[in-house]
Amino acid sequence: MRGAVIHAPGDVRFEDRADPTIQAPTDAVIRMAVTCVCGSDLWDYRGINAVTSPTPMGHEYAGIVEEVGADVTTIKPGQFVIGSFFASDNTCEICQAGFQTSCVHREPVGAGGAGGAEYLRVPLADGTLVATPEAPSDNLLPSLLAASDVLGTGWFGAVAAGVQPGSTVAVVGDGAVGLLGILAARELGAERIIAMSRHEARQKPATEFGATDIVTERGDDGVAAVKELTGGLGAHSVIEAVGTQESMMQAIRSARPGGAVGYVGVAHDVTLPGEELFYSHVRLLGGPAPVRRFLPDLIDRVWRGTIDPGKVFDLELPLDQVAEGYRAMDERRAIKTLLRP
Amino acid sequence: MRGAVIHAPGDVRFEDRADPTIQAPTDAVIRMAVTCVCGSDLWDYRGINAVTSPTPMGHEYAGIVEEVGADVTTIKPGQFVIGSFFASDNTCEICQAGFQTSCVHREPVGAGGAGGAEYLRVPLADGTLVATPEAPSDNLLPSLLAASDVLGTGWFGAVAAGVQPGSTVAVVGDGAVGLLGILAARELGAERIIAMSRHEARQKPATEFGATDIVTERGDDGVAAVKELTGGLGAHSVIEAVGTQESMMQAIRSARPGGAVGYVGVAHDVTLPGEELFYSHVRLLGGPAPVRRFLPDLIDRVWRGTIDPGKVFDLELPLDQVAEGYRAMDERRAIKTLLRP
Repeated sequence: MRGAVIHAPGDVRFEDRADPTIQAPTDAVIRMAVTCVCGSDLWDYRGINAVTSPTPMGHEYAGIVEEVGADVTTIKPGQFVIGSFFASDNTCEICQAGFQTSCVHREPVGAGGAGGAEYLRVPLADGTLVATPEAPSDNLLPSLLAASDVLGTGWFGAVAAGVQPGSTVAVVGDGAVGLLGILAARELGAERIIAMSRHEARQKPATEFGATDIVTERGDDGVAAVKELTGGLGAHSVIEAVGTQESMMQAIRSARPGGAVGYVGVAHDVTLPGEELFYSHVRLLGGPAPVRRFLPDLIDRVWRGTIDPGKVFDLELPLDQVAEGYRAMDERRAIKTLLRP
Repeated sequence: MRGAVIHAPGDVRFEDRADPTIQAPTDAVIRMAVTCVCGSDLWDYRGINAVTSPTPMGHEYAGIVEEVGADVTTIKPGQFVIGSFFASDNTCEICQAGFQTSCVHREPVGAGGAGGAEYLRVPLADGTLVATPEAPSDNLLPSLLAASDVLGTGWFGAVAAGVQPGSTVAVVGDGAVGLLGILAARELGAERIIAMSRHEARQKPATEFGATDIVTERGDDGVAAVKELTGGLGAHSVIEAVGTQESMMQAIRSARPGGAVGYVGVAHDVTLPGEELFYSHVRLLGGPAPVRRFLPDLIDRVWRGTIDPGKVFDLELPLDQVAEGYRAMDERRAIKTLLRP
């Protein structure tokens, strides 16, 4: 088969890779229906994470089950399935508490046959994959794919930030996760959603997904703007969807005492000042989103047409043009690129 | 009147101070029945916080209302009352959300007439003070005083750490707050309570307050011991009651993914590594305990005899011997000193 491989910063190639096979009796192999480029992959593409050897890329996936191992009981060949970037058994204590991305048996999906390819091996298939009620129509594919990562991640951000009916929510970051954090906050009943976005092209989708206010300032000025919109108090809930020192501090300082930050931007070189945090009274919860916790609900919402997170894909390319998909996101010409094998 | 004043590290004196008076129509003045030395005052006593001028000390108090301002409506002269170290209006949005120590009108109690004295001015009396059903018997005084700070702080640590019936809880720190965190965890239904304590003299009260296991190791060894006691996963909830870099990291690393740390040790020179925190999946909430949120419930539990947090006082002195009270705590001869005017 063929798939995406990064060789060096800025150098993603579509090339021959070994076909994935069943390696453990709990594995499944799926034929990719759609895949995409993740914003977190840009850390490699931009050379911020070191690329030391050619590495398969991509970890968002939805497709048809081709084959399952002997111990797989609930997932069947022919089903259309969606999974998350970490495989999980979904039965251990940590999974049962809803933190499947820290499952005691977790494995990264895509190791040795990553998502940006024609086929994918998924470990722990029963615990990882969720099947749709039947084969989806083509127009649902982008939204179902979004559930695999960016929607589930934005959703976790909103849940971790404690969004409730009536909440005032601020969202730091206007990439795909931030935009779908807005959608999640709206679905969870937020009354006011402040999108912190300085990119005009992102403000329109932010508003479509549910933002009621746009704050274009960043850092301390952004915090001051959120405070002004919230009677001086700050937001009840803040979704952090960037992962830098500036964005984390902007998030913490935008939350009111007793409020919470759900941080889902992959943290890079972030250190939090303990004394400021202590006196802030802001609750923190974040990390790799346990998308599996939310998948059945998210698939159901997509299936019923309640939400349309697939709108976050504003560029669609054949999978063999994956390199252009990366370039477009790197250059901010696209929010998120959908790829079709 | 006379009261405690710190002049320099190690130099606490009992000396004449101006009598507190009603300064705002929302004030009350109370005559102290009991007061005490707070572990957090040792930061000044040990010279870790700078002492730049003679400063009244003490912020834990319980006593009889002497006089109230014209706008005080619920608190009456003659009532026995307990309050917390921050005055709060108890009506603003932040108070209503249970974070009275971040009240938009908060004031430190004791500014200009601190708690280690014969009389005390309490601002925002209606929002700050809670009266007992009637005059308490003498044997209840230590426990009612404990509710003013150390019990309420340990309780907040347990609540912030999400302690629930059946939880496994670890407690970092064996001072008065840590010990009463153990009591709080037990009252909230924890099944297993691991006290992290290396001081033999503290292990006995820890067990009396509800600890089921003692871990004497600190740092990484302490974390390993907690993991071993919890099937490799870590505790559901960890109460941090020290405030140092080592104790915070010990707390975070002792919690399982999806678990939580309630940190109530006043943070000193703590910086948290963002990436480790991100991948830990540990929820953080802490800060100055909103004791006022819990006071009615805590007073009720003391009144009914359900809990006896006053046992945390293992030294009792007349107030004029306050200097010896500090020395005994500094030298770890006492966990906590009760002072009677």
